[in-house]
Amino acid sequence: MHEWWLVHRMPFYLSMNPSSLSESIAALIGRDKVASSADVIAAHSVDKWSASHPPDLVVFAESTADVSAVLRFANERKIPVTTRGAGYGYVGGCVPVEGGIVLSTVRMNNILGMHPEDGVAIVQPGVITKDLQDAAHAVGWEYPPDPASLKDCSIGGNVATNAGGPRCLKYGVTRSYILGLEVVLASGEVLRTGGRLHKNKTGFDLLGLFTGSEGMLGVVTEITVRLIPKPASRAMLAAIFPEFEMAAAAVQAILQAGHLPSALEITDSFTLAAARKKLGADVFPPGNAHLIVEVDGRPAAVAAEIGELQRLLGEVGATFIECAPDEASCERIWKLRREFSFSLRDTGLTKLNEDIVVPRSMLVELVAFARQLEQETAIPIACFGHAGDGNIHTNLMVRDYEDPEVRAHADAALDRLFSWVLDHGGAITGEHGVGLAKRPWIRRALGEVSYASHQAVKSALDPNGILNPGKFLTFP
Amino acid sequence: MHEWWLVHRMPFYLSMNPSSLSESIAALIGRDKVASSADVIAAHSVDKWSASHPPDLVVFAESTADVSAVLRFANERKIPVTTRGAGYGYVGGCVPVEGGIVLSTVRMNNILGMHPEDGVAIVQPGVITKDLQDAAHAVGWEYPPDPASLKDCSIGGNVATNAGGPRCLKYGVTRSYILGLEVVLASGEVLRTGGRLHKNKTGFDLLGLFTGSEGMLGVVTEITVRLIPKPASRAMLAAIFPEFEMAAAAVQAILQAGHLPSALEITDSFTLAAARKKLGADVFPPGNAHLIVEVDGRPAAVAAEIGELQRLLGEVGATFIECAPDEASCERIWKLRREFSFSLRDTGLTKLNEDIVVPRSMLVELVAFARQLEQETAIPIACFGHAGDGNIHTNLMVRDYEDPEVRAHADAALDRLFSWVLDHGGAITGEHGVGLAKRPWIRRALGEVSYASHQAVKSALDPNGILNPGKFLTFP
Repeated sequence: MHEWWLVHRMPFYLSMNPSSLSESIAALIGRDKVASSADVIAAHSVDKWSASHPPDLVVFAESTADVSAVLRFANERKIPVTTRGAGYGYVGGCVPVEGGIVLSTVRMNNILGMHPEDGVAIVQPGVITKDLQDAAHAVGWEYPPDPASLKDCSIGGNVATNAGGPRCLKYGVTRSYILGLEVVLASGEVLRTGGRLHKNKTGFDLLGLFTGSEGMLGVVTEITVRLIPKPASRAMLAAIFPEFEMAAAAVQAILQAGHLPSALEITDSFTLAAARKKLGADVFPPGNAHLIVEVDGRPAAVAAEIGELQRLLGEVGATFIECAPDEASCERIWKLRREFSFSLRDTGLTKLNEDIVVPRSMLVELVAFARQLEQETAIPIACFGHAGDGNIHTNLMVRDYEDPEVRAHADAALDRLFSWVLDHGGAITGEHGVGLAKRPWIRRALGEVSYASHQAVKSALDPNGILNPGKFLTFP
Repeated sequence: MHEWWLVHRMPFYLSMNPSSLSESIAALIGRDKVASSADVIAAHSVDKWSASHPPDLVVFAESTADVSAVLRFANERKIPVTTRGAGYGYVGGCVPVEGGIVLSTVRMNNILGMHPEDGVAIVQPGVITKDLQDAAHAVGWEYPPDPASLKDCSIGGNVATNAGGPRCLKYGVTRSYILGLEVVLASGEVLRTGGRLHKNKTGFDLLGLFTGSEGMLGVVTEITVRLIPKPASRAMLAAIFPEFEMAAAAVQAILQAGHLPSALEITDSFTLAAARKKLGADVFPPGNAHLIVEVDGRPAAVAAEIGELQRLLGEVGATFIECAPDEASCERIWKLRREFSFSLRDTGLTKLNEDIVVPRSMLVELVAFARQLEQETAIPIACFGHAGDGNIHTNLMVRDYEDPEVRAHADAALDRLFSWVLDHGGAITGEHGVGLAKRPWIRRALGEVSYASHQAVKSALDPNGILNPGKFLTFP
């Protein structure tokens, strides 16, 4: 979708051909860190979204010094540099649409220190999120952010997109766990901000500014994350409701009763139908909505709270409630929940997964609008996601998406969806980021004053515009 | 301390005398919103720190339009504008050291909406923090940030300083509760960012950038805060330990055992001695350190956890443990804790309250250094604060601080303290901000690359440098 960036901008470095670029970088940091073979170029042209554009060169940095040398070189020559973590983004954020260098951090994948005594871990950006979680668990601590792709995505990418996940309702997004960063600026200068400190009011919140900046303000080379004492226990309820409205009302009732679950996940009828088709009709009892409630904490507390919640769900009309009182049964429910995604995939349709957010009270309105849009466009729409956050993954399920006419039709439907979301005080992205996928709507979403402020900040930190060019701050 | 800003910079607007300035602003927004009487000027020359400088004019904005009109006018003429909330800052942050306009937000003190269904409240900046908390409690919800001055300080000031408090260990600082901001830029343009959404990845984290920017990047005129379901119950333990080292070790043991208390407050022997002097020798049993542990949550959970913690504190050597199982007894312990500050005041000494932060594992080293510094300078030093965050208020207790020689001696001691903190990976401020008080150390604390980035961001958003000039980004 939207390949227009290929035509409307020309690369702005014309002084150097790819082979001399490769030679120069190899001379700077070593030949074994540079690659331009066809397969490497192809692998670094895409992420998990549909856009594709080849870089001229892929650099596998192994140190901060490598990153600094490459950026200094590129900045002097105005060569685009697109940083890439594990490449598991969903919005084309690390696709190098203006060519130049892809700067991969996969080799910077060391856990530099686990420090429970300070409540922190220090990691390189290429560390896989699950590996950090496992390392924290090994010392009895927890790194709470849990993006769905945590087995595949890297911490660096999580920082770039300020990644979320189901547990954000209670524990917050990635930003809440970033205490220190080392960032190489476009100039090649190395900035360090924050540290192994749980409070810090020294200057502006540069941690926040770099977290979620999608590779446009600097290259993160070291990350100090906050750990919390690992909750000793968790338990879950999975409930079926006759209608989506009742499940949404249950979300309100749970929070209003004073519970703050670690997850509150809602699923609509389309998704449930796909799951029943893949997993068997009897995987759930009949009903048009599914709700997961997870709580964690001290064992006695969790047991008592899950009992209260079970009663509450019954009172608000759940027709079936499964209780998962221990770790193993919780994992079984989460596994089933993950099957929802796979069952959508198994429909054979292209899933346009939009991670929109609405005020929590508007879940029902959102799903009603989705049903209406589905009817008017004949594109099935599956809604499920983080009900507590109002962050509902709204999936347009498109047959023959490669057909340009179909694609135009689907894009028009997306346009209606995003317009509705913005008109209702929502956001076009809750956790995936803007990248290329949301680029057409970002300016409207931000408003002109905010957009201009974004450009001013970008120009202040990357005056030559070399970092991840072609994304939302380089509009035609 | 440090009145050098009066000599090293001259006001950079020389085209306008105060009375014509007053006339012009009155014509723009109304005469009743402008004041320049001696008492108003005097009241707006100071905050709770020692610095003082008069503004030429005080403006009491009543709307976003007022703020916008004043800033547009001031920006065109390069007139300094220093925004002021309730004036309860501890670092001189709202002292208008270059004169010009003090822009007060005290009249913008409406709670615009309480929306538990969305988990948010919408407030104007002049709302007193406690009033917001009370309004949240009235609907069964909680606004967790709890700066010590919450009965006096305003939300706008909390945003400006990214205020903390005891509960930050579990609940995070002010930033964690800011979901949406309306900000008037130096140009007078109105920027809106975020909204009543619990997740939002639309662009850069401008919420973070403005939160904690100490009035140097814009004027906040509306704030959407996150609320959480009010924990139904809390309970506390107050323990006495023979030595500070044992209390610090207890902090580690509590967290390592998987507890995440809502507060963990530690107090040293100097402070305890002052408290005993003020409140009576038998207010606590003998012992050189005091530790408060507060937990909150569902009632059954809290009761169980407080029992576990009580056993744990006994095991790690507490010689006396008081249990506060309910709201009333908790309040009694917090009241006693607040008396610690008053008892320091009652010493008749000037308290230089430095809100430094160290890695959590270094509490003992910090206090040992404070003891050494005390010995070498003959300035008593009282340490107490948020042990879980490593955020220890380190109070230099100075006799005859008005005497220039004494002041120079005290300032030299502060310099040694901050140098030690920075050399040991700490921060010079955890929750008060930089303002004027920490200005001499900020450049070293940030490092040159970060400092230059701060200046670049400041210039991008406030090119004429009118917002709160004379603070840490306008070094000579």
